[in-house]
Formats: sequence, structure tokens, C-alpha cells
Amino acid sequence: MNLRVMVLNGANLNLLGSREPEIYGERTLADIEELCHTRAAQRASADEEWDIDFRQSNAEGVLIDSVQEASRACVGLIVNPGGYAHTSVGLRDALLGCDIPKIEVHLSNLYKRESFRQRSLSAAAVDGVIAGLGAEGYLLAVDAVIALHRRQTS
Amino acid sequence: MNLRVMVLNGANLNLLGSREPEIYGERTLADIEELCHTRAAQRASADEEWDIDFRQSNAEGVLIDSVQEASRACVGLIVNPGGYAHTSVGLRDALLGCDIPKIEVHLSNLYKRESFRQRSLSAAAVDGVIAGLGAEGYLLAVDAVIALHRRQTS
Amino acid sequence: MNLRVMVLNGANLNLLGSREPEIYGERTLADIEELCHTRAAQRASADEEWDIDFRQSNAEGVLIDSVQEASRACVGLIVNPGGYAHTSVGLRDALLGCDIPKIEVHLSNLYKRESFRQRSLSAAAVDGVIAGLGAEGYLLAVDAVIALHRRQTS
Amino acid sequence: MNLRVMVLNGANLNLLGSREPEIYGERTLADIEELCHTRAAQRASADEEWDIDFRQSNAEGVLIDSVQEASRACVGLIVNPGGYAHTSVGLRDALLGCDIPKIEVHLSNLYKRESFRQRSLSAAAVDGVIAGLGAEGYLLAVDAVIALHRRQTS
Amino acid sequence: MNLRVMVLNGANLNLLGSREPEIYGERTLADIEELCHTRAAQRASADEEWDIDFRQSNAEGVLIDSVQEASRACVGLIVNPGGYAHTSVGLRDALLGCDIPKIEVHLSNLYKRESFRQRSLSAAAVDGVIAGLGAEGYLLAVDAVIALHRRQTS
Amino acid sequence: MNLRVMVLNGANLNLLGSREPEIYGERTLADIEELCHTRAAQRASADEEWDIDFRQSNAEGVLIDSVQEASRACVGLIVNPGGYAHTSVGLRDALLGCDIPKIEVHLSNLYKRESFRQRSLSAAAVDGVIAGLGAEGYLLAVDAVIALHRRQTS
Amino acid sequence: MNLRVMVLNGANLNLLGSREPEIYGERTLADIEELCHTRAAQRASADEEWDIDFRQSNAEGVLIDSVQEASRACVGLIVNPGGYAHTSVGLRDALLGCDIPKIEVHLSNLYKRESFRQRSLSAAAVDGVIAGLGAEGYLLAVDAVIALHRRQTS
Amino acid sequence: MNLRVMVLNGANLNLLGSREPEIYGERTLADIEELCHTRAAQRASADEEWDIDFRQSNAEGVLIDSVQEASRACVGLIVNPGGYAHTSVGLRDALLGCDIPKIEVHLSNLYKRESFRQRSLSAAAVDGVIAGLGAEGYLLAVDAVIALHRRQTS
Amino acid sequence: MNLRVMVLNGANLNLLGSREPEIYGERTLADIEELCHTRAAQRASADEEWDIDFRQSNAEGVLIDSVQEASRACVGLIVNPGGYAHTSVGLRDALLGCDIPKIEVHLSNLYKRESFRQRSLSAAAVDGVIAGLGAEGYLLAVDAVIALHRRQTS
Amino acid sequence: MNLRVMVLNGANLNLLGSREPEIYGERTLADIEELCHTRAAQRASADEEWDIDFRQSNAEGVLIDSVQEASRACVGLIVNPGGYAHTSVGLRDALLGCDIPKIEVHLSNLYKRESFRQRSLSAAAVDGVIAGLGAEGYLLAVDAVIALHRRQTS
Amino acid sequence: MNLRVMVLNGANLNLLGSREPEIYGERTLADIEELCHTRAAQRASADEEWDIDFRQSNAEGVLIDSVQEASRACVGLIVNPGGYAHTSVGLRDALLGCDIPKIEVHLSNLYKRESFRQRSLSAAAVDGVIAGLGAEGYLLAVDAVIALHRRQTS
Amino acid sequence: MNLRVMVLNGANLNLLGSREPEIYGERTLADIEELCHTRAAQRASADEEWDIDFRQSNAEGVLIDSVQEASRACVGLIVNPGGYAHTSVGLRDALLGCDIPKIEVHLSNLYKRESFRQRSLSAAAVDGVIAGLGAEGYLLAVDAVIALHRRQTS
Repeated sequence: MNLRVMVLNGANLNLLGSREPEIYGERTLADIEELCHTRAAQRASADEEWDIDFRQSNAEGVLIDSVQEASRACVGLIVNPGGYAHTSVGLRDALLGCDIPKIEVHLSNLYKRESFRQRSLSAAAVDGVIAGLGAEGYLLAVDAVIALHRRQTS
Repeated sequence: MNLRVMVLNGANLNLLGSREPEIYGERTLADIEELCHTRAAQRASADEEWDIDFRQSNAEGVLIDSVQEASRACVGLIVNPGGYAHTSVGLRDALLGCDIPKIEVHLSNLYKRESFRQRSLSAAAVDGVIAGLGAEGYLLAVDAVIALHRRQTS
Repeated sequence: MNLRVMVLNGANLNLLGSREPEIYGERTLADIEELCHTRAAQRASADEEWDIDFRQSNAEGVLIDSVQEASRACVGLIVNPGGYAHTSVGLRDALLGCDIPKIEVHLSNLYKRESFRQRSLSAAAVDGVIAGLGAEGYLLAVDAVIALHRRQTS
Repeated sequence: MNLRVMVLNGANLNLLGSREPEIYGERTLADIEELCHTRAAQRASADEEWDIDFRQSNAEGVLIDSVQEASRACVGLIVNPGGYAHTSVGLRDALLGCDIPKIEVHLSNLYKRESFRQRSLSAAAVDGVIAGLGAEGYLLAVDAVIALHRRQTS
Repeated sequence: MNLRVMVLNGANLNLLGSREPEIYGERTLADIEELCHTRAAQRASADEEWDIDFRQSNAEGVLIDSVQEASRACVGLIVNPGGYAHTSVGLRDALLGCDIPKIEVHLSNLYKRESFRQRSLSAAAVDGVIAGLGAEGYLLAVDAVIALHRRQTS
Repeated sequence: MNLRVMVLNGANLNLLGSREPEIYGERTLADIEELCHTRAAQRASADEEWDIDFRQSNAEGVLIDSVQEASRACVGLIVNPGGYAHTSVGLRDALLGCDIPKIEVHLSNLYKRESFRQRSLSAAAVDGVIAGLGAEGYLLAVDAVIALHRRQTS
Repeated sequence: MNLRVMVLNGANLNLLGSREPEIYGERTLADIEELCHTRAAQRASADEEWDIDFRQSNAEGVLIDSVQEASRACVGLIVNPGGYAHTSVGLRDALLGCDIPKIEVHLSNLYKRESFRQRSLSAAAVDGVIAGLGAEGYLLAVDAVIALHRRQTS
Repeated sequence: MNLRVMVLNGANLNLLGSREPEIYGERTLADIEELCHTRAAQRASADEEWDIDFRQSNAEGVLIDSVQEASRACVGLIVNPGGYAHTSVGLRDALLGCDIPKIEVHLSNLYKRESFRQRSLSAAAVDGVIAGLGAEGYLLAVDAVIALHRRQTS
Repeated sequence: MNLRVMVLNGANLNLLGSREPEIYGERTLADIEELCHTRAAQRASADEEWDIDFRQSNAEGVLIDSVQEASRACVGLIVNPGGYAHTSVGLRDALLGCDIPKIEVHLSNLYKRESFRQRSLSAAAVDGVIAGLGAEGYLLAVDAVIALHRRQTS
Repeated sequence: MNLRVMVLNGANLNLLGSREPEIYGERTLADIEELCHTRAAQRASADEEWDIDFRQSNAEGVLIDSVQEASRACVGLIVNPGGYAHTSVGLRDALLGCDIPKIEVHLSNLYKRESFRQRSLSAAAVDGVIAGLGAEGYLLAVDAVIALHRRQTS
Repeated sequence: MNLRVMVLNGANLNLLGSREPEIYGERTLADIEELCHTRAAQRASADEEWDIDFRQSNAEGVLIDSVQEASRACVGLIVNPGGYAHTSVGLRDALLGCDIPKIEVHLSNLYKRESFRQRSLSAAAVDGVIAGLGAEGYLLAVDAVIALHRRQTS
Repeated sequence: MNLRVMVLNGANLNLLGSREPEIYGERTLADIEELCHTRAAQRASADEEWDIDFRQSNAEGVLIDSVQEASRACVGLIVNPGGYAHTSVGLRDALLGCDIPKIEVHLSNLYKRESFRQRSLSAAAVDGVIAGLGAEGYLLAVDAVIALHRRQTS
């Protein structure tokens, strides 16, 4: 069975590697995509093939559309909303309407940063949150989504 | 005379009927659109034909564009901004620049929900607000817009 | 079947027409009462006759008594608490204990006014809220109460 | 010696038993009154006969009048202000001007409820507070008032 | 010409002289009434006779009724709302609808007291405020109302 | 049947009688313990013997341990957390996990004291709260726990 | 006996008459000084001659110096601190150290203005406050200071 | 050498001239563009030719894309984010990742307007801010960007 | 090489499995310990043997002592402070003084819970945070600590 | 025609060049004064000669006096209040009473600094604000004042 | 006479010298203890021998116990509560119950640090506070305690 | 070598001894000056002679001037800003620009007083703070400044 997991990246994540690398690390988004594909492949089993649908957009509306799409077409969602985590009620509502395993990832540890980054509207609409672990956080999220899916379907 | 009223729906309202139905009801957005057309037809008089221009978008920019368009092409505007009601200064400014009768509609009673839903930037930029009455709220808004238009042009 | 709807008006609404007309409009409370009776008559059907029990008081205790009475004797309640909307926990509690369709009406759009008018303790205890539409708001509320009643009893 | 204790009940307490019983319990106010009389009778001694003056009003002014009356005519006051606890400066001032043992009772545990119920203007003007124990709280208050009276007069 | 000035006293002011005299002074409300009559008599001129309509109530609704009455029947209003100054939107609205010279008086200096006494909803709806001067404050208010009236009618 | 009720005292309550007696009274903790034993003995019936397990600790961890122990070994819990009431999330969580009748007692009336004493994290995790009644409050709490136990087991 | 009352005016009051006359009125500070002298003369009695020491400065330090001087050389102080009322801890401390009758005057009704004007650090350090009555407020303050002086020395 | 400066305009700035002209002035965005071109031409020197890349969008995502593009293709950025200044974390992050001279311009003086317009997330991510000077502000910004560029490259 | 990772559990985590299982899941702390040992064993390589030092305490001081010990004796720290995350400055300071890879784990998604649980003093003192994933979160944290260690030592 | 523009500098600006140069730059106040004179000379036209009246004081009262003087003697005002921008109501009131073109300049970008520097009482009383551009900001302000003057007099 | 002064150190102070030395300095707690003994010895007089009882604990309960012990056995208390200064109501209450000269010491200047370190519950319960002076602060505190003791006993 | 230390006193400190002695003590400022000279003399060594430059002013501008002067002419600064500590950004900036050892002294323990006295803008700009120790605090500050100077120059 082919199982799709969407990995959805929000505002400015296309700049990874060059933008404020002391905060966000030196890996590019393409690097992270590749790492996710590798990890998904490693996690394949006899009856589960894991596909990664990796996306990025700077537009809030496109992110909302994608969450709606994930809800229909995927078995799991990993979302790094970037700055929209802190302000988008629409993204939160889309996530609330999406009943698959959902993990929010942040590259940096938001608790160490500006106070407005410590409110996350979207985080309350997902199952779990992984923050501060850089690219590694995406891989843990892949593992987490798979674990949640297996628990749900077992 | 053909008079156009725009009914503008914001983020996630395309999911109506399936998303959190205990809050938003079981009618789809297509159901509401049809109810609006019917109500508009019922309100027609000898010299007024009411057309409904019914739209939805998840994108803030598209909503702002639509409000600007309504300002030029319609005699009334009914707007349910969804989550953008609480955060969009741009939508508020577009509404402030739009001098036709304007009603904000919310399906649910925002006063019963999370505190961040009790601030509405857009509501201060419209004539009236109708909240908590589900699909019925749209029909009351159609009546209200017609009443405001008649008062204005009488 | 005769069905009674209470329309309950709070503090200073007896002054309508003369008090701050640029905010509250030029219709008197008697005008609004008459409009409500007319609208109720228009909405009558073969087996439903709608009666309006129209009241006003400047006293919080009398308003609470009236809500309790509506709960026993009416099939719907339209309440414009005036200033008590923002401060009366007692009114809120009375409304919470009253299980009939309930609409809160405000003549002005509270979102455009002083910040203390943007908190409504009572609004969270009713089904829906209609604000900013002047006397027209009462008529929409009559329609809304009838719609809620019909949905409930159908 | 006949000693009078006023038990003063505020807004909506006349609805006890039917209003939100999951919060306020199923006993009516009449039940509580009877329980108070019984407890007072049990506490009678050779030279003390305890009378309960049990009242309820939805009107803030009447509650203030009653506190003033208790100050002149009773040896103790038990007050459940209902919603007025959270908003009435007048009730607070009346209690501050009343120099007999005073206990505030709440049926529900206010710390578990809406944030506006966690401020009590009146509670700072009484000797002690008993909350969350339903009808039993009134009986403990009767015992407490008697204990305070005895300590004061011993 | 006989000119009437209403002096309206709110919650607990009937207790003056006995309630917290270290804050409110030792004069009773009857003393203050008499002082007001005397001062009004002293201020009489050939064509102006000043009458004082002196009242007190613990009920918010009665105070609102009285302000409405003053608006119709008096040339000036002196109001000491007691605790209602800090919480009554209804009283504020009544004062906003009353177009005669209006002075708010407080016996104590509110700036020295609890923080909730430093917000006055009613004070923003009168012409001037006199606080902290005890019974003398009423007499200054009589003078002030007369001065405002003369300026208005000159 | 022997029924155990734990009476758990937090920080600084071992100093009772000598520490700020104008606030906390002159009885020592040993006095209160004895009063509790006496009251428990008075409440014994044919098939219920009430034992009091009276403790005090200045350490948050020990209080949490004790609440966990009460949950396993007692039929009721009376807790005066002292200063930990206002700051201990751990104590709150322990109480939430403890399904026996629970009463929080405070010797002083917290509503009259510093603002940081008016937030109680633990109070929202118990059934009822008794404050401001000194040593008497413990005795009322013994009665309340017994009453709650009887209602639960009847 | 010659008795001196200082009338101390703070920042920008030298501009009276020309600066924002719709708020501060059209009388100049010289006009007000003259009115004060006239009123003081009218209040003279057989054994009391009232002198007015009228001053203005835009400098906080000079105002503090003047309050200290009033404390040594005057029997009363009338102070209109202008903008310093809202921010000067130093002025407040000077007033707290000055044990003569003290009245704070404001030309405009601060309760109707920007929120930062509704905090007065100095007002809590005087006996009474008169606001919103324009130049008339100074004259009432002269009367009030004389009344306070007489009460104190009688 | 041809040097490009992007002038990026956000939500509703396409309405300039017709929308709330008492706040935003009567010049259209096309007028401002032309003024910028003229000013840029005036500032040309022997070895510097200044090009203006003038844009407007109502969409947050498009603005973020443009900032990223400016970072790669321009030597300076002038941004008037409109309402997004106050809410867009994404725009702020894009600006933080853009290492060329950056000026934020606002037509109106935000300090005189609603409180939510006094927080600017983007302003902390640019070099300088110019507000309240209407179309003139853009021209000063052109001069400022050129000055910053020259200082940087000198 | 034997490498030790401390897994430190705070207040009430000894109750796992029985306390509020709808929030914290049904696994006991012993279950989680065993899962951690298994995961650590799976992650062993030729030259790295991973030992888990698994602890729990309800006492803040013991947790601080343990963090200090981890700093000296371990190569990684996984900490679930329970309620102390939200209030303990001491724990935060201990973590700030501990220079090994550190992950904070929470069983539940704190963003969905009471507001006081959304402030984490300790989270700003660790490298990364994993929340809402139940027991699985501990295993991801083991992986994360190993990854951080390898990156650090590579 | 000789036209005077006052450039008024507040607290600590006499230290420019030596005080925190990483924030305020390395130019002295004398350097800036000279730059202003040069710029003014460059802007002279056939019938306009621009004079700069350049001042600095650490005293709030002197700054208020100077603003009052500018109001009478100059055609434009450039003010850098230094720290007084954030606290001086008196300076704000002086600026409100001064009807010539007014620009507030700050050397540093206040949005990047301590939160108390993000409130500017004075900025709401001027026409425009220029911040973050160092000495260059003064020159832009000279240009802006001239532009405002020409628009006003054209 | 041998006089004992307790020097009580709270959470993480045992790490001094190695933990964040740029904030807390490079001296160890043992160094500070020795400096205190030396200073105490220097201050000895003919009839006063000063003993230092130097302690450290990471546990709040132990600190409270120690303060209680100091109250019985010492003539002075120097307390550096570490992180407990900001959160411990229990420590504050213990200090309030301890009637000997008390000085709170902090190594760093708390006013320069995170906002949660600027609230000190314990500081309001001691006589004086010395902060920001490193180890030297302890020695000044020894001098201060001796001075307070001498003033008290002279 | 002669080394000068400025001791700078702010608003109202010239009143010491007579103003609120229960808070500020009974010593006059002249007493404190003399004590400082004595202490400085005691601290003299073979190659260091300590001079005290003792000043007081009620004017903020004079205090700022003095701090600037200290920066040029002294090796240490002791400042008791009085009320300016809580409001003066200018004083804070002057202190930030002054690179010699600096100690802020307060006679009273600010943590026990009004909340506005618990914010100190200036305290974050000095090395250390000593509060609550009366005149003794100045002498400890003299010692502290000398110690800081010696550490710096050693």
C-alpha cells in the first residue's frame, strides 16, 4: 500500500541555508526534502510504502489549500508554517478540519526567541510539536507520523 | 434594474458541511449559495432585480481584491471573512474604502468561542454584524443589505 | 396556535429618538414596537399566530425577572440589554438558564465604539447577535427567532 | 435570647434546581431554606434561639437595602450574591459598612469557572468565604456565623 | 424664575455619618441636604430662585430614571453615584443623554483608594468632577452648576 | 469501619501561633490538630470511625507525595497548601489525579490580601474552598468531607 | 492676619487662551490670576486677609521647588501640574511632604481625554481634585482651600 | 552602472487617491511612481544610473516573494507594507533575510491612529522608517536608500 | 564506549497510566522506561553503547540536583519537568548551566491546555522540545539526543 | 525672505559621537549642525533663504520653552527629543499647541530597541517621523520641513 | 558574646564559578564563604564575636526550614534565594515571620536581565537588597547586618 | 592620587529628615554628606585619597548634566535619583554613556512600596543597586565604588 505524507513548508523556508543560518542552520530546503525521502524509504515495510509530498509556499491561502488537500489525499501531515504559525487563524481552522495525524515542526527553538513567536495558533490544532532540532526535527516528525498512523490503524 | 450583491466568503468556508459541523452546521457552501439566490429572487420587485455574486477564497489578497471590486461593481456586500476577520488589517482597510452597504456574517456565535475570535478588525469597518445564526444569517444579511440600499436610495 | 415572543429592552432605550440620534437613530421605542407587531403579523401562518410582548426597564433586576418569565411563557426572546450587556453577570446567568431561542440586538455597531462596549457578557448566553442595523435589527431578530423556533419544532 | 441571621440570596438563585443543575445542584432554594431552619434549630442552646431570615432578590438595590437592614437587625449575615459578587461595588460598600459576622457562600467552586467569576468584590468585605459545597455550604455558613458570634460575645 | 437643581445620591449614601466615617466624614446625608438648601438660598438673585431636589437610592434603575427626569425638569444636576460610578454603563448613557450642566461629586479622593475606584464611567459623561472635599464638595458643586447655567444662558 | 481523612498543611504552617498572629490567629498547629481529632470523634457513628492523619511540610515535593498517598489510603483530603496554593502546578496536578472528596482551607481571607494570593492553582482542583475562618475553617472542612463522603457512598 | 495661598501652574499653562481653546477655554493665565485675586479679596474677613502667590513654570524641578516653598511659607496650595500630573513621581513626593491644604485643578475633564491623562500621580497626594470646570475651577479651589484651612484651624 | 531600487507597495495602496483621502492624500499610486522615477533620474551621477522597480500587491505571499527577489536583484528596497506592517511575521522574516539598504515608508503618521497600527513587525527589520509625510516620504526614502548605498560602497 | 543519557521526570509522572489517562495516555512510567532502554539498545553501534539513567522525583530540588549531576556524568539529558516547566526558575538556571545536548519532552500538547501551561521557563534552556506525542516523544528524544551528540562529536 | 527652522535636540544629544556610537553613530552634534546649515544653504531659492536655529538641552522645561518659541518665531520645527519622546506629556502638549510644520527625528530605529522606546508621546503631535537613518535623518527632515512649508504656502 | 549570622544560598549557587561566569563571576561559593568568614572576623569587637553559618540548598523546603531556624538561632540573615526569589511565596512568608535583620543579595544586577527576574517576592520581606556587586555584595551585606544589629540593640 | 566620587541626589532628597521620616529616616542630607566624607577619609590609603563631590537637585536636566560631568571628572558615581529613577529615560541614557563604576542607592526598600516604584529605568544602567538600608546604604556604596575601582585598575 502506498501511503502519502505531506510535508508543508510556509513563509521564507525556500531561503533555508542562506537566511540567518545561525538560527535556521545551513541545510537548504532541498537537502531536507532529500533527507525526508531517504527516511521514508528506510521506514518502508512489506505492506507500507511511504511517499513524501514536499511543498513550500510563501502564501497563506496556498498553505490553507494544501492542508485541505492533505486532509483528502494523505495519511499524515508535517507542517512548518514559518511565520504563519503565530498569526494565521485560517491555517489553524484548516488544521482543525483535517483529521489525519499532524505534526508541527520548527527548525529553531521558539522559546528562545521574540515573544510574538511564542504564541502558536496552529500548534493547538495539531497532534504534536517538535521544535529546535533543525533538519533532524523533520525526520523525527516522519517517524512520529508513521507511529501515529500505525497506532490509529492497528 | 439589475442590482448586484457580492457575498464573499473567506478561509475554509469551502469546507462547510464537513468541517466541525457541531460548530458550523451541516449545510455546504453550495447549499448556502442556493439559499441566497432563492432569497434574492423572493425579494425582487417591479424595478429591482437582485443578483448574488457568490465567492470564496482562502487567500487574503484575493479577498481584498474582491472587496475592491465590490466597491466598484455592486450595491451591497456581505462578507464572512472566516479567520481573517480577527487578523487582517488589509481587509479592514479595503472595507473602510468601500462605500456600499456592508454586513459581516459569522456562522457561529463568536462570543462563545476562543478569546482571539472575539476581536474583529473587519467588523468595525462594516455597517452591521450578524453572528451565530448559521446559514440563516446569510439570508438575514441579504434582507439587511436590501433594506440599507432602499433607505439610502429613497 | 398563539406563540409569544418577548422583546426586552434595557437601560435608556425608553429615550430612543431623542438620545444621541446620530448613534441610535431617530425612531422611538414606540415606533420599533409597532414595526415588530407588523412584522409578526406578516409572519403568521395557518397554524402559527405570533404575539410580541414588548417591554422596557432601566432596572437590572426587572430585566432578570423578565428573562425568567420569558423562559416560562414565551417561545422566543429578543433582548437589547443596553448598557447591561457589558456588565451584568446576573443577566447572563438568567439567559443561560432560559432554554428558548434567544437573539441579542444592538442598534449601533458596538465594534465601532468605546472598548468597554466590545465586551458582552450576555452575548455569550444567546444563540445569535445582530448589531449595527438600527430598528431593522429588531425585525431581522423577529425573523430569526421564528426560524429558530421552526427548526427546533420541525 | 432570639438571635436573627439573615441569609441573603442574589440574582437567579430563585431558579435553583432547574437552572444548570450540573453546576448548581438539584436542590431548590426552598429546600435550602428549610435545611437552614433545621440546622439553626439544632444549634439552639439554653440561652440562644437562632432565627433565619431567608431572602432572595434579583435586584442589586434590594440586596444593598437588605445588607443595611441586617446591619441594624441581625447578629449575622450569610450572603450568596450570585452574579453581583463579581461586579457590585455598592454591595461591597454596604458589606464594609455592616459590622456583624458575615460569610459569603457560593454553590459552585468559582475557581473552576469563567475568569470573570474569579474576581469577587464582595468577598473582600466579609469575614469568610465558603465555595463549591452546594447546599451544604449554607449549613457550614450557619455554623460559622454562630461560631463567630460566640467568639465575639464570649 | 424658579430653577431646579437635582442632587442625586447613589448606593449607600443613606448611611453617611455612620459608615466608615474616617473615609466619608461624620456628616449625615440630611446634614448635607440642609447645607445645599442653605447654599442655594444664599445664591438666589432678583430673578433666580434656586430649588434643590435632593434624592438618594441604592438602585441603579432608579438613578437612571432620575437622571432622565432631571433632563426634562431641571436646569442642573449634581450626582454622587457612589459605587455605580465605577460600573454602570446605563448611568453613563443616561448622563450622555442629559443636556444640562452636570457635576459629579465624590466625598473621598478616589485617587487614594482601591484601583477599581479610579475608573469612573460616569465621570466622562459630566461636565466637571469634584472629589475629596467631603460635604464641602456638594456646595462647590452647587456654585459650579449655577456658574455653568449662567454662562450658558448669558 | 475506620475511615481516614488526611489533613495536609504546607509551607510555614508549623509556625502558627507565633507568625503574624494578627493575620493567622493565635492557635498553634498542634491546637488545630487536637480540635480536628475532637471534631472527628464527635462525628463518629455506629459504622463509621473517623481518623485524622494530620501532617505538615515546608517542601513542595513532600506535599505532592502526600496527596498521592491520600489518593490511595484515605477517603477524604483537607489541604491548606500555604503559599504553594498560588504557585504549584505540581500540587494542582496531584490533586487533579486524586479522586476523593477534597477541601482547600485557608486561615485568612485571601481576597483581602496581596494580589498574588488571589490566584489559587490548587483551588480549581478541589471540590470546595473555605477561607478566612481561622481554625474553625478546619472543623467545617472535616464536616464537609464527611458530608461529601456520605453523599458519594449513599 | 495675612494668609498666603500658592497657585502653581505647570507645563504649557502660560499658553492658555491660544493653545487648543476648544479644550482649555479662551481665558489667558493672566485672566485667571486676576480672577483668583478678586475671589481672594471677596473672601477676606476681619482677621483673615488672603494673598495669592500665582506662578507658572514649564520645568518639573521648579515646580518641585515651589511645592517645597509653599510647604514652608503658605497655608494652602492650588496646583495645576499640566502634563506633569501624569508622569512626575518627584512632584508627587514633594506634595506628600507638604502638610498644608492642597487642591489639584484641571481645566479640562481628564476622564474624557487620552487614557494616559487618566492616571494622576499627583492627585493621590492632595486633599481634593476639581476638574473640567475651566477657570471657574480655580475659584472653587480658592474657596475649598479657605474652607479646609478654617476647618483645620477651628 | 545601472542600480535598481525596488519600491514595494502592499495592501490597498492601489486605491490611493480615492480611499480615505483625508488620511492618505489625493495622489494616486501612479502619481507616486512617476515622482519616484523623476527623483531617481535627478539623483543620477556619472557612474550611477538609478532604476525604480515599482510594484503593488494585495497578497502577503507576493510581497514576501518580492522582498526575496529584491534581495537578489536590487541594491535598495523601499517598502510600504500597508496593513501587513502590523501583522506579517513572514514579511518581517523576509526583510531580515534581505541584506540591502531598506526603508519602510508610511503615508500617514501611524502614531496618530488606532493602537493596532502602532506595532510594526516589519519596521524592526529595516534600516529606517519614514512616516506621516505622504508622497514626499517616498522621495525622501529614495534619497535615503541612495545615501545608505553610497555609504556602504564608499 | 559507554555513553549515559539521563531521562529525568518531574512532578506526578510516577502516576502515569492512572492519572487523567485521557490526557497523559495509559502507559506507566515503567513502560516508558523499558521502551527507552529498548530504543537505546537498538541505537547501539560498534563504538557506542547507550545507557539510560531513568529517574523521577516530585521535588524541585532533587530535579535541580539531577540536572547538575547529568552535566558532570552524562552526554545527553531528556527532561520532562511536569508542572515545574512552568514555574521553576531554578530548573531553568540548572539547565542553562548544563552544556550537554538537552531535550524537553511533554506527553501532552501544551498548546491545547490551560494558559499557564503555555509558558515554559525550562524550554528556553534546552536545545529542542517535543510535545504531544505521548510515550513516543521519549523515543524521539532518545534519537534526537543521539543525533545531537554525534553532530557535536563528529 | 529669511525663513527660520528650529532644530531642537533633547537629553544627552550633546554626547553624540562618544556615547554608545554603535547605536548613535560617530558624528558629533556639531557635525550634524554643520550638515544642516549646508543643506539649508543648498535649498535656498531666489525668494527663500533658510536659517537653522540649532539647539540642545537636557532639561524638559527648556525644550518646552523652545517649542513655544518656535511656534512664534519659526516656519518649521525639527525635534529629536531624545528620551523625553517616551515620557513627556508636557512636550507633547507644547507640540500640539505649535501650528507649524513639525518633524520628529530619531538617530536610531526605535523599533529595534527596548519596548519603552516604542511608545512616543511626542510623535503623535508632529506631522511626520524619520527614524533610524542617523545624521542623514536630519537632512531629510530639513527637506521635509521645506516641502511642507511650500505646500502650505503655495 | 558570640553572634551568629546565617548566609543562606538557594538554587544553583553551588555551581558558582563554573556556571555562566560572564553573569555570576568566577568565584566559587567556597571562595565567598571564606571571604565572609574573613570579613566577620575583621568586624569583631571586644564584646562581639561574629560567626557565619554558611549554607546552600537547591530545595525550596530546606530554604524555608533554614529561615525558620535563623529566626530562632541567629541575629542576622543574609539570603541569596537564587531563582526562588522570583517565585516562592513560602520563602516570602518564612521571611515575614522572621524578625531579625535580613538582607537579600543577588550576584548579578537583576534589572539588566529577563523580565521574570525583576519581580522578587522575597525582597519585599527583607530589610534591604544589594544586587549586581558579585561576591562583594555578600561582604557589604555582612557589614549591613552588623550595622542593623547594632542600631537595633543600641 | 586624588580620586573623586560624585554622590548625586535627585528630587526631594533636600527634604530628608523632615519628609515622611517613617519611610526615609530622620537623618538630613547634610548628615549623610558628612558620613560620606568620613567614610571616604577612612578608606584612604597611601596612594589613594578619596574625595566626595556631593550634590542635590530637583531638576532632571541638572541631574543629566551632572552624570555627564561625572563621566569626565570622577572615578565613581553614586546616584539616588529619587522619583526620577522610575521615569527618566534621559537619566538612564546618561548613565549608559558614563563608563565609570556606578551604584544606585535608595533609602527605602522599593519592593515594599507602590508598584510604580518597582520599575527603575536607571537601575538597569548602573553596576549595582543598594536599597532599603537608609543612610548606611550610602556608606556601603562608597565601599562598593572603591572596590569596583580597585578591581578595574588592578
